[in-house]
Amino acid sequence: MSQNTSKKIINNPLKCADELLDGLVLAYDGKARKVGTRSIVMNDLRPNAPALLVGGGAGHEPIYHGLVGKGMADGAACGDIFAAPPPDIVLEATQAVNRGKGVLYLYGNYAGDVMNFDIGAELAAEEGITVKTVIIADDVASAPPSKKNQRRGVAGLVPIVKLAGAAASQVDTLDELVRIAQKACDNTRSVGVSTKPGSIPATGAPTFELANDVIGLGMGIHGEKGIGLIPMCTADELAPRMLDLIFGDDLALNAGDEIVFFVNSLGSTHMMELLILLRAARPILEGRGLRIHQTIVDNIVTCQEMAGVSFSITKLDAELKKLWDLPCESVGYTKL
Amino acid sequence: MSQNTSKKIINNPLKCADELLDGLVLAYDGKARKVGTRSIVMNDLRPNAPALLVGGGAGHEPIYHGLVGKGMADGAACGDIFAAPPPDIVLEATQAVNRGKGVLYLYGNYAGDVMNFDIGAELAAEEGITVKTVIIADDVASAPPSKKNQRRGVAGLVPIVKLAGAAASQVDTLDELVRIAQKACDNTRSVGVSTKPGSIPATGAPTFELANDVIGLGMGIHGEKGIGLIPMCTADELAPRMLDLIFGDDLALNAGDEIVFFVNSLGSTHMMELLILLRAARPILEGRGLRIHQTIVDNIVTCQEMAGVSFSITKLDAELKKLWDLPCESVGYTKL
Repeated sequence: MSQNTSKKIINNPLKCADELLDGLVLAYDGKARKVGTRSIVMNDLRPNAPALLVGGGAGHEPIYHGLVGKGMADGAACGDIFAAPPPDIVLEATQAVNRGKGVLYLYGNYAGDVMNFDIGAELAAEEGITVKTVIIADDVASAPPSKKNQRRGVAGLVPIVKLAGAAASQVDTLDELVRIAQKACDNTRSVGVSTKPGSIPATGAPTFELANDVIGLGMGIHGEKGIGLIPMCTADELAPRMLDLIFGDDLALNAGDEIVFFVNSLGSTHMMELLILLRAARPILEGRGLRIHQTIVDNIVTCQEMAGVSFSITKLDAELKKLWDLPCESVGYTKL
Repeated sequence: MSQNTSKKIINNPLKCADELLDGLVLAYDGKARKVGTRSIVMNDLRPNAPALLVGGGAGHEPIYHGLVGKGMADGAACGDIFAAPPPDIVLEATQAVNRGKGVLYLYGNYAGDVMNFDIGAELAAEEGITVKTVIIADDVASAPPSKKNQRRGVAGLVPIVKLAGAAASQVDTLDELVRIAQKACDNTRSVGVSTKPGSIPATGAPTFELANDVIGLGMGIHGEKGIGLIPMCTADELAPRMLDLIFGDDLALNAGDEIVFFVNSLGSTHMMELLILLRAARPILEGRGLRIHQTIVDNIVTCQEMAGVSFSITKLDAELKKLWDLPCESVGYTKL
């Protein structure tokens, strides 16, 4: 079995989420601050504007809390390693980002996150803060289109948060922000594969098990089941299998459509492999007449040293394209 | 022994360097093009300006060829995996970036690179192209200050190329570009540690061997010897040991000095660990009165799935600070 023998440069294995958040705040060089127990919020927020709050479990850095920044999220509620932020942390972050126009919660579809953000929203309502929620569920391999509410949120959250963050820098009402964030979600699909597990910081144990001669097709970032196991194969063989899962889904991708194409490493898969996969994928996309407005090749949605990759496609209409082209800056993703 | 069992998503193991370059060109979305055998060059180059050419072996992505971009390098000569670009590739890149004002070669101090870039410069001279060279040798653990010409070039090349790239977008003469690139080198120091090898794409074998209970202090990105092996330790213990090697070197770092601080993952070390190390390092830097102008936390100088980290410090004077603050955009590093 392919295993990860953990040998991590950390301190107390049970304090990783707190310590990495301290480090993350320092990485922002004064542009963001720590709030309460484990939230991070930008310092210069546009007055009288609706707020964009993201969040989720730690251990997947630079998401979620590393997507806070100019033209990105206003703040993030950070959970413990692989655990949703508890409601009091969601509330502290909500209070810190709210500027009287309400707060959009935008996060991936995991049961713990949904439960805790929902309770956070109730607590915020008691304080007079309007909260609306858009849930990211872009993983086509996690459930069929008819059961979208069961789909996981994976790497598509990066283009989605970028688009919602751009919207948050422009619009005046929470409803407008909700509308655009929902459209970004509706227009985004992802599929991931895994070749090796990462490690659990507290124990050093692998996050899951996977035989050496197989790839987990459609596997989630914690090793959740997807389509199933397929034999280890080449980049040229794998790219069309992944893209076919997106093409077979319910997002219309027609000739002439403009897209953002994001090739993500889940942790230790090297950029060399991402680039070789991009070389395999791009002619397939162009063969369908899709026009690639921007390509992203990076490791932004990770799970420790997990090996694997994901493809995400976001279809841009005129409104989303305009928002996409705005610059943004964060620890996780920066664009001129 | 800690080993890397390779399970890579590639095609022909002997074609990786060519295929990743194809992918890299695609990642630039039309802003750069492939030139000749294995070079990449930006399309919109400032006319009548001195050129900045970088390069080196493949397998360390996003360096070196991923540092091509606006406000970064004009082009790169790409070698095979872990091998210097041959002189004909250096020449093809040189011809493509030259705009009549000469070309600066800026690359890391490895014997093969020095030899091949020097021959490339001779070939370019025969074509009437003026070439000057600045060699990056920032690794304080690879030789004492008295033997700087034996030092390796490691992660400090990222701030150095950023500064030289900013200069290349501004200055009118090759001599000015040389002067600023040399100052960026003179003001930059790095030190790395390793905890696990990466893999050799052609064979799947580990790039070196390292016992499970030790850290290679000062180890180079191919596993080159540094200070020696130290027992595995915590982030809080490791950060001061690394910084002391930089503080003990011959770059004056005095209270009030402004610096760029770059925490780099060598491949599979997760951003969680980088952030926890930043948390440990930052108070030490501030305790010496250093002012951190910008922090970078990313994996930019890598060696496949090698685990380990490096710290790089670049001291900014007024001229370098102004250049630092210019925006830049590349696959490897982008700044608003």
